[in-house]
Amino acid sequence: MDAMTLARPHGKPLDRIMDVVRDDMAAVDAILTEQLNSSTDLIPKVAAHLIAAGGKRVRPVLTLASARLCGYEGYDAVRLAAAVEFIHTATLLHDDVVDGSATRRGRPAANRLWGNKPTILVGDFLFSRAFQLMVETGSVEVLRILSAASAIIAEGEVMQLATANNLATTEGDHLAVIRAKTAALFAAATEVGGALAGASPARIEGLRVYGDCLGIAFQLADDALDYAGEAGATGKDAGDDFREGKVTAPVLNAFASARDDAERAFWRRVIEKNDQEDGDLERAVDLMRRDGAVERTREQARAYGARAKAALDVFDPSSLRDDLRDLVAYVVDRDR
Amino acid sequence: MDAMTLARPHGKPLDRIMDVVRDDMAAVDAILTEQLNSSTDLIPKVAAHLIAAGGKRVRPVLTLASARLCGYEGYDAVRLAAAVEFIHTATLLHDDVVDGSATRRGRPAANRLWGNKPTILVGDFLFSRAFQLMVETGSVEVLRILSAASAIIAEGEVMQLATANNLATTEGDHLAVIRAKTAALFAAATEVGGALAGASPARIEGLRVYGDCLGIAFQLADDALDYAGEAGATGKDAGDDFREGKVTAPVLNAFASARDDAERAFWRRVIEKNDQEDGDLERAVDLMRRDGAVERTREQARAYGARAKAALDVFDPSSLRDDLRDLVAYVVDRDR
Repeated sequence: MDAMTLARPHGKPLDRIMDVVRDDMAAVDAILTEQLNSSTDLIPKVAAHLIAAGGKRVRPVLTLASARLCGYEGYDAVRLAAAVEFIHTATLLHDDVVDGSATRRGRPAANRLWGNKPTILVGDFLFSRAFQLMVETGSVEVLRILSAASAIIAEGEVMQLATANNLATTEGDHLAVIRAKTAALFAAATEVGGALAGASPARIEGLRVYGDCLGIAFQLADDALDYAGEAGATGKDAGDDFREGKVTAPVLNAFASARDDAERAFWRRVIEKNDQEDGDLERAVDLMRRDGAVERTREQARAYGARAKAALDVFDPSSLRDDLRDLVAYVVDRDR
Repeated sequence: MDAMTLARPHGKPLDRIMDVVRDDMAAVDAILTEQLNSSTDLIPKVAAHLIAAGGKRVRPVLTLASARLCGYEGYDAVRLAAAVEFIHTATLLHDDVVDGSATRRGRPAANRLWGNKPTILVGDFLFSRAFQLMVETGSVEVLRILSAASAIIAEGEVMQLATANNLATTEGDHLAVIRAKTAALFAAATEVGGALAGASPARIEGLRVYGDCLGIAFQLADDALDYAGEAGATGKDAGDDFREGKVTAPVLNAFASARDDAERAFWRRVIEKNDQEDGDLERAVDLMRRDGAVERTREQARAYGARAKAALDVFDPSSLRDDLRDLVAYVVDRDR
C-alpha cells in the first residue's frame, strides 16, 4: 500500500461503508438464507438463484449505515436490512415476469428457468417474509414506512405500464415513475434506519430525502448507462432498455432534441412501435451523442445527487457521513 | 312469514351473521373502495372489477364476527376485515394469472381484460394496502398473524404447482395444500378478531382452529361442487377443475377406487396429461358417482366442519356462536 492510498480513504465508497457494517451484513446474508426455509424446495431454489447472484446489496447496506449514523447498533437493523432486500428481490421477480426478461444480474432470469408461475408466487412469499421480519422488530413505525413504500412501488410499476412505449410521456411523469418504482424503496431503506434508532424527526427526514434523491440519481444513472455502458458485472446489457422500447430519460431527451420529422419518425418506430432493425441502436446512440441526451441525463442525476448530499447536513461530521456522501458520486458516475 | 319460519332463526347463517355486523360491513365496503384511490386509474379499475363482483365476503365477515364474539366493537375490526379481503383479492388476482383463468365470479377474469401485467401489479398493490390497514390498528400481534398467514398462502400456492396434474399426490399432501392455500387465511381472519379483542389465549386458539377447520371444509366442499354443482352465482362452472386437470379430493378418491388399468389410464390421460375429449367429464362424474368419490369428499368436509363447531365450545352460548356453528353446515352443504 503506497503513501497516496493511505493519504485518502481507500476503496470505493460502497466498500468503505460495507467495511463499517461488515458484521451486520454477514448477519443479513444469514437471514436471507435462513428465511428461505420452506416445506417446498422450489422457494429456496428460485429465490436463492437471484439472491445468491449477488447484486450490490445497496439497499440493505443503506439501512444498516443509516441506523449506524444515528448511533443504533442493535440486531433489529439487520432484520430490517434483510426485509428491505426481500422486498427488492420480490419486486425484481415480479418485474421479470411483467417485462418477460431474459436475463438478470448476468444470469438467466428466474421466469426463464422456472416459468412465470413459481416466479410470481415466490415473489409473494418473499414479500410476506419481509413483513414477518419487520414484525419481529416490534416497531409499528417501521411497518408503516415499509408498507407505504411497497404500495408506492406497486403504483409506480402500474404507472410505468402506461408510460411504456409512449413518447408523449412528460419529464414529470417519467420522474414520478422513477421516484415510485426505484426511489421509494431507497427512501424507506434509509428512513427506517433512523426510525429504528429513535433519531430526531429532522434526522429521520434527512435520511428519507437522502434515500429518495439517491434513488432517483441511481435510476437516472442506470437509464444513462443503457446507452453508454457495456455489459458488465451488474448483468445489465447496454441496449436492453432500447430493445424493450422503454421510455427512459435519455430517450425523452433525444426525442425532444429531434431536428426533423424523419428523426421523430425514427424514435416512434423503434420506441413506440418497438419495431427495430440492425443498426437502430447505433443510430439511437449517435443521435443521443450529437444532442448530449445521455450527458443531460447524467447531469439530472448529479443534481439529485447534490440534493442527497445536502440532506445529510443535519448530521454531525463523521467518516460514515462522508462515505454516504461519496456514495452519491459513485452511484451517479459508475460505468456499469 | 308463517309460524314455522318464526319458530327458528330464519335466513341463511351467513345472512344472520351479516345482520349482526351489518354496519361494520358497510364500513368495510367503504374502506375497500376508498383504499383503491391511486394516482393511476388502472388500479381502481382492475381491483374494483373483482371486488365489486361481490363474492360472498365470507372472510371479512368472519373477522368482524370473531371480534364481536369476544366483545370487541371498535373500528379496528373494520380495518382488519378490509385487510383480510384485500389479501384474499390479491391472491385471487395472482391465482388467475398463474392458472390462466378465463372467468372469476361469473365475469371475465382480470387477466383476460387487462392482461397479466396489471393483474400481477394490482395484486401487489392490494397486498401492500392490506398491510397499511393493519398498521393503522397499531397491533404488532395482528401484523404477526397476517404476515405469517400470507407467507403460508404463498407456500401453499407453490406446493400446489408440484401437486397439479400429479395423481401420485397423497391425501396428506393434498390436505397440506388446502390448509395452506385456503384455510390459512380463514384461520388468520378469525384469530385476528380474537387477538384484537384481547381475548384469552384459549379463545383466540379456539377461533383459530374454527377458521382453520372451516377453511378446510370450505375447500373440500368446493372441490366436491366441481363434480356435482352447476354454474351459479359464485361464477364457478362445474368441471372447471376437471378441465384444468386439477388434482382435487374427489379425483384422488376416484383414482384410488379405480377398478382396472383402463380406469387408471383414463384418469392419467385426463388429469396428468390433461388430454381431454368430449364425454370425458361425464365419464369422470359417472365413475365418481359409482364409487361415491364426491360423497366421500363431502364426508371429509363434514368431519372438519364438526371440528370447527367443537372449537367454539370455549365460548359461552350466544346466538352469534350458534350462527357461526350453523355457518359450517351451510358452507359444507352449499350447492353452489
